[in-house]
Amino acid sequence: MKPIIAIIGAGAVGCYYGGRLAEHGNDVHFLFRSGYDAAQSRGLIVRSLDGDFTIPPDRLNAHTHPSQMPKADLVIVTLKTTANDQYQPLIAPLLHDQTVILTLQNGLGNEARLAELFGRERILGGLAFVCINRLPDGTIHHLDHGTVKIGQFHGPLRPITTQIADWFSASKVPCQILPDLLYGRWEKLVWNVPFNGLGAVMSKTTDQLIATPQGRALVKSLMMEIIQTAATQGVKLPPEIADLNIAQTRSMGAYRTSMQIDKQENRPLETESILHQPLAAAQAAGIATPYLKVLYDMASLD
Amino acid sequence: MKPIIAIIGAGAVGCYYGGRLAEHGNDVHFLFRSGYDAAQSRGLIVRSLDGDFTIPPDRLNAHTHPSQMPKADLVIVTLKTTANDQYQPLIAPLLHDQTVILTLQNGLGNEARLAELFGRERILGGLAFVCINRLPDGTIHHLDHGTVKIGQFHGPLRPITTQIADWFSASKVPCQILPDLLYGRWEKLVWNVPFNGLGAVMSKTTDQLIATPQGRALVKSLMMEIIQTAATQGVKLPPEIADLNIAQTRSMGAYRTSMQIDKQENRPLETESILHQPLAAAQAAGIATPYLKVLYDMASLD
Repeated sequence: MKPIIAIIGAGAVGCYYGGRLAEHGNDVHFLFRSGYDAAQSRGLIVRSLDGDFTIPPDRLNAHTHPSQMPKADLVIVTLKTTANDQYQPLIAPLLHDQTVILTLQNGLGNEARLAELFGRERILGGLAFVCINRLPDGTIHHLDHGTVKIGQFHGPLRPITTQIADWFSASKVPCQILPDLLYGRWEKLVWNVPFNGLGAVMSKTTDQLIATPQGRALVKSLMMEIIQTAATQGVKLPPEIADLNIAQTRSMGAYRTSMQIDKQENRPLETESILHQPLAAAQAAGIATPYLKVLYDMASLD
Repeated sequence: MKPIIAIIGAGAVGCYYGGRLAEHGNDVHFLFRSGYDAAQSRGLIVRSLDGDFTIPPDRLNAHTHPSQMPKADLVIVTLKTTANDQYQPLIAPLLHDQTVILTLQNGLGNEARLAELFGRERILGGLAFVCINRLPDGTIHHLDHGTVKIGQFHGPLRPITTQIADWFSASKVPCQILPDLLYGRWEKLVWNVPFNGLGAVMSKTTDQLIATPQGRALVKSLMMEIIQTAATQGVKLPPEIADLNIAQTRSMGAYRTSMQIDKQENRPLETESILHQPLAAAQAAGIATPYLKVLYDMASLD
């Protein structure tokens, strides 16, 4: 039997991964917060470097309220972290005893909060390595990458985790299982903190941030602070990943990060999960991260 | 006899102060870098909260090259500091034995460079406390304030300094003589560093920067670092001037600083004189100024 999958927060990331899973024939239900009308009239249109596809309106299970949705085997949370205060009302109605919750959200603290609310055994965390935007007409534009890495918040590897990885892999989404979710989270922060943070505060795309030696030095200063902070949390990231991340970012071209887009569109920023949680970890550990501190202050200005 | 006054760099500040001096009947010559054609055809049009005035084309001594200009009794330098490598060719042709050079430029290091080139005895520094923009049609828009504070770079007060203050005062420009020019420079940096620096890097007007408690805290952090750095240079600024500066900035409304405008118009920024010189002083003195460091790095990105 095909699993029932719920996408909570059908933005760019939710629509892309949910769309891939639906295209492969899974029973996927999308909770839209914006973009519902476009999805209802046009369906879900995905332009992807891995192949375009469309889920037509009559096959798209688009919803605006969780009470309309069936209980799910897998709930994939792709809300902005600025909406995390909605976890309880949006997710609770979808749960049965065996439901697994996978958060693909950015930054730190999301799994811990979900575990508090719904029990740690069912919580997975995932990292979406993907360049993706939603265009004004609702079209999902998948520009680059696409791998998802998932890991359990707690306990030894369970069969359901492997199964979920298989669902993704079978749907043209490369998926890896992370033996250490926290390592993955910090590893991704090494990229997210400079590119999302500086991108939002300075209104610069990734390529503009690393176009000059000064820009690369600034980005690297932030990366090294994250690597140092991760070490205080028992996560030993090799320092070489700073240069490696910068080199890989060059291949992405002129990419607007989600935080830069949020800033330009006057939406709340994911400052708490991407900047403040790492800063709080550094401060609790007593290490100085001046670049992160100033960046956080700037991002918190509005 | 009326003094001959040369304005080197007839931008917003040069046109305003030179215009005031010319309107009062002084023999003022303007070296334009841009805006020459508009000035030749329309004259110098000033809209000012202290009273509008126009210097018509036939009474405006507009030039594009210093070789066209007479030797001057007073050279007022209002170049962007990004053009300081032009001091020698632009100023040398205008000097006689007694010529005084007054720089109204921003930041640190300008008087010292002029003194190296032309002798320290004739150098005055000045601070323009003024909100002023040049509109696209060349009109000078004087929005607020207007006081000039001038001081000698070297030696005891000389009569010519007092005389220059009188020339300004007689021309509707309030003018004070600074007993300690360095004090004045650092005092002004307390304002310039956060509002020019953050304004440029974050593309925010003064009122946006101080609209929230977080914004005011960020601005104040930078101000306190400047006050601490000034102390290492023998300049004891009272810490209360941070809050005082913020309070006074509220009265200015939505002001775009010159550095923000330069950034938006893709012109070089006065990063060296406004941010780097104070940072270099802090580093030489061995004190940590993380906000200034990160701000400087961000401003230097392009």
